[in-house]
Amino acid sequence: MSDENQEIIVIGHCNPDTDAITAALVYAEFLRQMNVNAKAYRLGDLNNETKFVLKSVDIEEPEMLPDNIPEGTQVALVDHNESQQSMKNLKKMRVTHVVDHHKLGDLTTSEPVYLRFEPVGCTGTILTKLFREHNLNIDQKTAFLLISAILSDTLHFRSSTTTDDDRNIVEYLHPLAKIDNLESHANKLLEAKSDLTGFSTQKILLLDYKTYDFNDEHWGVGACETCKVDTLLERKDELLKEMNEEKKKSNLTGILFSIVDILKEKNLTLISGEHEEQVVRAAFKVDVNDCIADLGSKISRKKQIIPALEAYFKSNS
Amino acid sequence: MSDENQEIIVIGHCNPDTDAITAALVYAEFLRQMNVNAKAYRLGDLNNETKFVLKSVDIEEPEMLPDNIPEGTQVALVDHNESQQSMKNLKKMRVTHVVDHHKLGDLTTSEPVYLRFEPVGCTGTILTKLFREHNLNIDQKTAFLLISAILSDTLHFRSSTTTDDDRNIVEYLHPLAKIDNLESHANKLLEAKSDLTGFSTQKILLLDYKTYDFNDEHWGVGACETCKVDTLLERKDELLKEMNEEKKKSNLTGILFSIVDILKEKNLTLISGEHEEQVVRAAFKVDVNDCIADLGSKISRKKQIIPALEAYFKSNS
Repeated sequence: MSDENQEIIVIGHCNPDTDAITAALVYAEFLRQMNVNAKAYRLGDLNNETKFVLKSVDIEEPEMLPDNIPEGTQVALVDHNESQQSMKNLKKMRVTHVVDHHKLGDLTTSEPVYLRFEPVGCTGTILTKLFREHNLNIDQKTAFLLISAILSDTLHFRSSTTTDDDRNIVEYLHPLAKIDNLESHANKLLEAKSDLTGFSTQKILLLDYKTYDFNDEHWGVGACETCKVDTLLERKDELLKEMNEEKKKSNLTGILFSIVDILKEKNLTLISGEHEEQVVRAAFKVDVNDCIADLGSKISRKKQIIPALEAYFKSNS
Repeated sequence: MSDENQEIIVIGHCNPDTDAITAALVYAEFLRQMNVNAKAYRLGDLNNETKFVLKSVDIEEPEMLPDNIPEGTQVALVDHNESQQSMKNLKKMRVTHVVDHHKLGDLTTSEPVYLRFEPVGCTGTILTKLFREHNLNIDQKTAFLLISAILSDTLHFRSSTTTDDDRNIVEYLHPLAKIDNLESHANKLLEAKSDLTGFSTQKILLLDYKTYDFNDEHWGVGACETCKVDTLLERKDELLKEMNEEKKKSNLTGILFSIVDILKEKNLTLISGEHEEQVVRAAFKVDVNDCIADLGSKISRKKQIIPALEAYFKSNS
């Protein structure tokens, strides 16, 4: 085919986390080893955890994806598949590959495609399988990126999204990544993730933020996984103000921001408006006090928060 | 999870061909070997080729899927993913697995899912990879089903959908399937497929038939791969009449029926109406004579016919 040498753009989602960035880097490397011309890009600034991971193995940040990508360019998506979490104009690109562990959203293609979705805790788990299935070598840096992504996405196996596959792959990667103590590495990731020094309130709100459509409502749901809940709660009023501004600016029907205590596995979700309060009360059967809903151990947006909201809107449609 | 022991329904598309039926049987077997409770069903009558394949290894036809499947039942789709090619009420089922080699259509899921799509010539090729990746044994009967599906779907490598993966997997399966002469087996499949003795015109039209939406138009595209083109051409007038009836009955905007000469790799497509004639002339840059458009070597509906129609409707939208 004439486009065999055209470079495939490999991207994780907007507001990238460690899995989105490392998955783009590692999948681009996988494609190159499969003799496919591919290059990783990012769709936003890196968080401190991801910066720490890349710096540890001396790997440069992927370039920011330029705005002027021509229509019909080949694109590989990792760690997401919905257009609203992706590059501008995704619908006008030619998506040829997707590796993801989320539900399947509004993606369609006009030709047969490579799709690899598994309901596991991290895209890195699926990527490791791809390397093994093709008998490709996983070097120390790649193993370090993959294991860091899995520890991050599964909150070191604390998240309910964790599967046996994630645990087995971490066991496999551990010696390859040359990390002495896994627990200590996971703690370093957590500390880096919790370090919000110098971050504006807006940046904190959008650090790990995704939008979702429920019936004809358009919602934004941010989350901050941290071991320093109190520091965030001190900024509650600023955060609520910022949520209202984001809601107005982006024409949202509702907005939520979850402060997730990773060590205690608790979710305190900020509620800035009456509509949100009514929905959260009904969807989660909880009270809202002082603009905070205690969602208890529901710490996974993907597996617990969004499904509960979907079920609520479905039964009220 | 509470639904772990619930039986997953495994189905290929409506108007099933050999790949759709064998893929359902083999994927159900794969899932069972992975300790997932699964059972294959069919969405229509088997063609003579598929009957020949199952009889050769003494495997029973899958049961017809009953009509009264409860909402929320777990479903695995093979060899298709679009709702209009699938069971009734698919949108109300819980799709948890898909293995396919077509473009991604209107499928969405409400939770993370297993998806395995590859742009290869046959679902059987992907299924063989799954067995190998999980170090599962492929017994003689399973190998026979898989290799027959690949030879059938790729027209023994003549179809433009054929990839190196299909060829390599056939080479791998050949000794396992205990087939002496591959060429002779492929010819037997072709002869069985071409045997339309006693078939009503309606049955021939719908034997390998799929519907597609282009913008706001709803089309039906049937195909008959045969080594006996003349026998079919003798029934041209009946076929044109049947096409018009199907068009009226199913509220179609257009309908096409391709007679594909597998040995000569030629496609003669029947045109029953003025709208179809105008679209085919423009989309394929060909003449239509006596209700027949000679589409030359364009013998793949998936890779050649539908993309040309899509491109036409896209440029005229």
